[in-house]
Amino acid sequence: MKVNKAAIYEAADALSNWGRWGAEDQIGTLNHVAAEDIVAAAGLIRKGKVFALGLPLDQKLQSGLFGGRWNPIHTMLATGTDAVAGTQDETVRLRYADDAINLPLQCSTQWDALAHIFLDDKMYNGFDATLVDSNGAKKNGIEHTRNKMVGRGVLLDVARFKGQDALPDGYAITNADLDATAAAQGVEIRKGDFVIVRTGQQEACIKAGDWGTYAGGDAPGLAFETAYWIHQHDLAAICTDTWGCEVRPNETTEANQPWHWVVIPKIGITMGEIFFLKELAEDCAADKVYEFFFCAPPMHIPGGCGSPINPQAIK
Amino acid sequence: MKVNKAAIYEAADALSNWGRWGAEDQIGTLNHVAAEDIVAAAGLIRKGKVFALGLPLDQKLQSGLFGGRWNPIHTMLATGTDAVAGTQDETVRLRYADDAINLPLQCSTQWDALAHIFLDDKMYNGFDATLVDSNGAKKNGIEHTRNKMVGRGVLLDVARFKGQDALPDGYAITNADLDATAAAQGVEIRKGDFVIVRTGQQEACIKAGDWGTYAGGDAPGLAFETAYWIHQHDLAAICTDTWGCEVRPNETTEANQPWHWVVIPKIGITMGEIFFLKELAEDCAADKVYEFFFCAPPMHIPGGCGSPINPQAIK
Amino acid sequence: MKVNKAAIYEAADALSNWGRWGAEDQIGTLNHVAAEDIVAAAGLIRKGKVFALGLPLDQKLQSGLFGGRWNPIHTMLATGTDAVAGTQDETVRLRYADDAINLPLQCSTQWDALAHIFLDDKMYNGFDATLVDSNGAKKNGIEHTRNKMVGRGVLLDVARFKGQDALPDGYAITNADLDATAAAQGVEIRKGDFVIVRTGQQEACIKAGDWGTYAGGDAPGLAFETAYWIHQHDLAAICTDTWGCEVRPNETTEANQPWHWVVIPKIGITMGEIFFLKELAEDCAADKVYEFFFCAPPMHIPGGCGSPINPQAIK
Amino acid sequence: MKVNKAAIYEAADALSNWGRWGAEDQIGTLNHVAAEDIVAAAGLIRKGKVFALGLPLDQKLQSGLFGGRWNPIHTMLATGTDAVAGTQDETVRLRYADDAINLPLQCSTQWDALAHIFLDDKMYNGFDATLVDSNGAKKNGIEHTRNKMVGRGVLLDVARFKGQDALPDGYAITNADLDATAAAQGVEIRKGDFVIVRTGQQEACIKAGDWGTYAGGDAPGLAFETAYWIHQHDLAAICTDTWGCEVRPNETTEANQPWHWVVIPKIGITMGEIFFLKELAEDCAADKVYEFFFCAPPMHIPGGCGSPINPQAIK
Repeated sequence: MKVNKAAIYEAADALSNWGRWGAEDQIGTLNHVAAEDIVAAAGLIRKGKVFALGLPLDQKLQSGLFGGRWNPIHTMLATGTDAVAGTQDETVRLRYADDAINLPLQCSTQWDALAHIFLDDKMYNGFDATLVDSNGAKKNGIEHTRNKMVGRGVLLDVARFKGQDALPDGYAITNADLDATAAAQGVEIRKGDFVIVRTGQQEACIKAGDWGTYAGGDAPGLAFETAYWIHQHDLAAICTDTWGCEVRPNETTEANQPWHWVVIPKIGITMGEIFFLKELAEDCAADKVYEFFFCAPPMHIPGGCGSPINPQAIK
Repeated sequence: MKVNKAAIYEAADALSNWGRWGAEDQIGTLNHVAAEDIVAAAGLIRKGKVFALGLPLDQKLQSGLFGGRWNPIHTMLATGTDAVAGTQDETVRLRYADDAINLPLQCSTQWDALAHIFLDDKMYNGFDATLVDSNGAKKNGIEHTRNKMVGRGVLLDVARFKGQDALPDGYAITNADLDATAAAQGVEIRKGDFVIVRTGQQEACIKAGDWGTYAGGDAPGLAFETAYWIHQHDLAAICTDTWGCEVRPNETTEANQPWHWVVIPKIGITMGEIFFLKELAEDCAADKVYEFFFCAPPMHIPGGCGSPINPQAIK
Repeated sequence: MKVNKAAIYEAADALSNWGRWGAEDQIGTLNHVAAEDIVAAAGLIRKGKVFALGLPLDQKLQSGLFGGRWNPIHTMLATGTDAVAGTQDETVRLRYADDAINLPLQCSTQWDALAHIFLDDKMYNGFDATLVDSNGAKKNGIEHTRNKMVGRGVLLDVARFKGQDALPDGYAITNADLDATAAAQGVEIRKGDFVIVRTGQQEACIKAGDWGTYAGGDAPGLAFETAYWIHQHDLAAICTDTWGCEVRPNETTEANQPWHWVVIPKIGITMGEIFFLKELAEDCAADKVYEFFFCAPPMHIPGGCGSPINPQAIK
Repeated sequence: MKVNKAAIYEAADALSNWGRWGAEDQIGTLNHVAAEDIVAAAGLIRKGKVFALGLPLDQKLQSGLFGGRWNPIHTMLATGTDAVAGTQDETVRLRYADDAINLPLQCSTQWDALAHIFLDDKMYNGFDATLVDSNGAKKNGIEHTRNKMVGRGVLLDVARFKGQDALPDGYAITNADLDATAAAQGVEIRKGDFVIVRTGQQEACIKAGDWGTYAGGDAPGLAFETAYWIHQHDLAAICTDTWGCEVRPNETTEANQPWHWVVIPKIGITMGEIFFLKELAEDCAADKVYEFFFCAPPMHIPGGCGSPINPQAIK
């Protein structure tokens, strides 16, 4: 489809979930997950094997291209070297180490909150964008999802389906690609699913030992039209192994991240990015089971516009 | 039992798990969780109800009593007010909000890593304490647990069992208390369990709107003898709703946090603290089911001596 | 004088320096300092005695009353205990300590930049307030003053003149007080001066070992009418030993910090706060010389709305 | 001279100032500055022209080569866009912007404290290196210099003297170079001077718009033998426009930064690095006056191992 500003606003109208779950709703498509879906998803735990999808936070993927984000800063407040030197014995009288971390909420594996993206002057469900000020998000903050990131997870390993280690930068994953991948994998997409799309791009960076412009540069990713696919399938959330889910360069020069303009503010879908999928994907390829129990709790940050996460896929 | 330095070293000898899972083991009692335990725990998901046990990170519980820890600092890197003022339209060409957080890893709901506490010059499994320096923990860091915090959770609601809103400061929960609570609740403690003990202290602070000296002052908590109980039951992890799990004032003045001296460095148990238990405890009291699927992934922080978490209890 | 919103806008009109130094000016009253004033001020260096007016940054004066400011966080990145434990010998091959600090720019002794306060939708010299967004101040940032904080300093020790250790909270220092203090001290106020007013409040906090509500609570300070006095005397800057220069409770309930509404956005005066004056004031009382060379460079923070400083008074 | 470990220890013995100013001294060669030197230096203020030698803190010179230092992080706590959106009107009732900075103390223009470098297990004046632990420096911290960075400054523009825009990486500035530069400039080096050496390397980076490996890579700089020159001239402090003062690659492979091993721990000289010298150097070249009043107060950080600064050279 032709992507431009008109297409953005057309999709925004067509796919809007504003009001669908009430005027005060702040979790959007996470409403698609019913209690029985969680119970059913528990049945996918058959091997007792757990995959951690959080990238190590010492990976230096932020290159400064976008928004002044930095790589996580892990600093020590007390150390074993202090302990052994005896500097704690008179004061704390407990030999210990302690530490802190300082990180942008979206600098590595992460959820975007619904407060993260605006369309014109509004965010999801019609709340004013100005409700997100220097004190945080008064509406649509990540805290509303604190017990909502649980359900059925499905991996769509598009790269493997296409027979590639990694899809090339600029490759736009179409609705047909998603359908074909699901079909080839023998997995059905259902209402309330947490769908995770693998492009292989991240693994290529790790293998090369060079993040390059992973954070904000060109990348394979979802085509603009997938906004319709997401809406049609009533997904709970959509996740990828890339920085920003959607293809870059974008399919239009009239807007930056055109898919974002629609899916977060209008569909109200929580988006997961920078998922580490290597181990999970290898296991799925081996046992041909692409569905699993998914549990990816955000940090409980009131007013947060995102959250670092270490999602768990349990088979 | 009489608690003093001699008792600490006696327990350290009696309860040591050094070498039990090999000379290179870095996860300690999390080894107790077998794959089949995870599958069995999945069977506890019967209602599809999820409880978030992470305290909101805007709660100001750090009062500076211990170790220079501070309350989480949540700052904005981009806002909806910027967006509406139009300051992003020419530059980013995407209207968005973005934010960051800076927090001690153990300032709120958290896992202690095995690198957190030393006995003399050593940490769990005999590694030198000096392997934890200003660059982080080269051994026993939290990253080794990134996919290990999954299994059967059991709530021991000692406060409710005792008929109290909150146990008083200084109350030492004994092995007999733990056994009696489990018996009254009709729940069995099994190898590989994540056991969560509720004192009610945290809820009292929240109710009072005053954290006082919650972080490092007097508190109800586990008696020193529970180190034996933990070891005997082959727990995976032990968690409470208090700042430091064990009773304060401590049962001896010869050491600060005597129970810590043993359970982390010698038993090698990962400890959870500052769990928010109100909603889970009310549900357990109502349906009389005190066991659940437990999933509490740490952040993937290489070399971390702890991790903020938002544990999920799923029934 | 009667202070209310009308008085604020009346003063704003009467005292405006917008355009006085050109449409692009971003330093306001610092323009009053001429090169010859700096040369003349050098002549005040007669004893070779230097006073550091920066409060130690480990003083915990921020109590959270205002704006989410925190106390400075000083963390170590490398330590002597690491060095002695030998952990640097193979890697860095240099034994060293290193550290970092994280602090609000106005959490202790500080300059306010002209970008700090707005009147309605504007800041000093008529620039739009929206030019200060999450990326910092595009106009009136502290960087423009990086070599401008040099000149003649004058201490007006109002507390000592009044025979008090500290003026009481709520005491409004009038124009008459300032004139009488200067007269009693035998010092003349001149165009381009950096005038420092001592209330004694800070020393009372230090003596008590309790900062209480120093940061944002009640305090002695400048009366609203001193805006006229400042303008009339063509001061370069005005400084105090209090958190916010002006008296609190404010002289009106119609606005918070009414004097600020005028002096920064309209007069364009850079304001110094939380100056540590004890040693300087004692020396001035002893030698009866209340003028000195003043050098208080801000950090060179492009877009900064303030800066921590350690001002030097040299006699 | 031949540089190796033996030469380091020989210089350490020959140049030691331990005990010279008493067993408790913590400021080292800053003791060379007498009150009369400050008075005399005031006489160098002849034009009323002030040069700010602090590099803008938005320059991204840290590339991660050394010690996990990061570039300064400047974040906003309140903005003009918030103000104009009206989000402060009901709460703070003052329209304002506010901000914070998080930076390694030595990430840009800076003083090294005497606690920064150790020789074996000791720091300056024989204090144990373990007195610098995760809580900061108990001895030799930067706070002791808070009113000591005032005196006569002298620029030695070696690059200009050599007729070069910038000395090449690896060029070791010798004692003869320093003497010849001083002679050519017609300036005498005196006891208690703050000597600033210009290599031009920093300006080359700024001109190229690329910091490359400025922070920790190859650079022109002081030869090891200058340790003797510094000691002989009784300097107060030594500063350069480079990252680490001394030449890189170092003159030996037996130690990293061999000159540092001696000058900080044994001579006890405070070192200034990353000075921005372009404007000052051009003025000195123009008026042929290479001496000036120098005032470079550190932040008042108790226990700090360094401090960011914005030094002022006043002519």
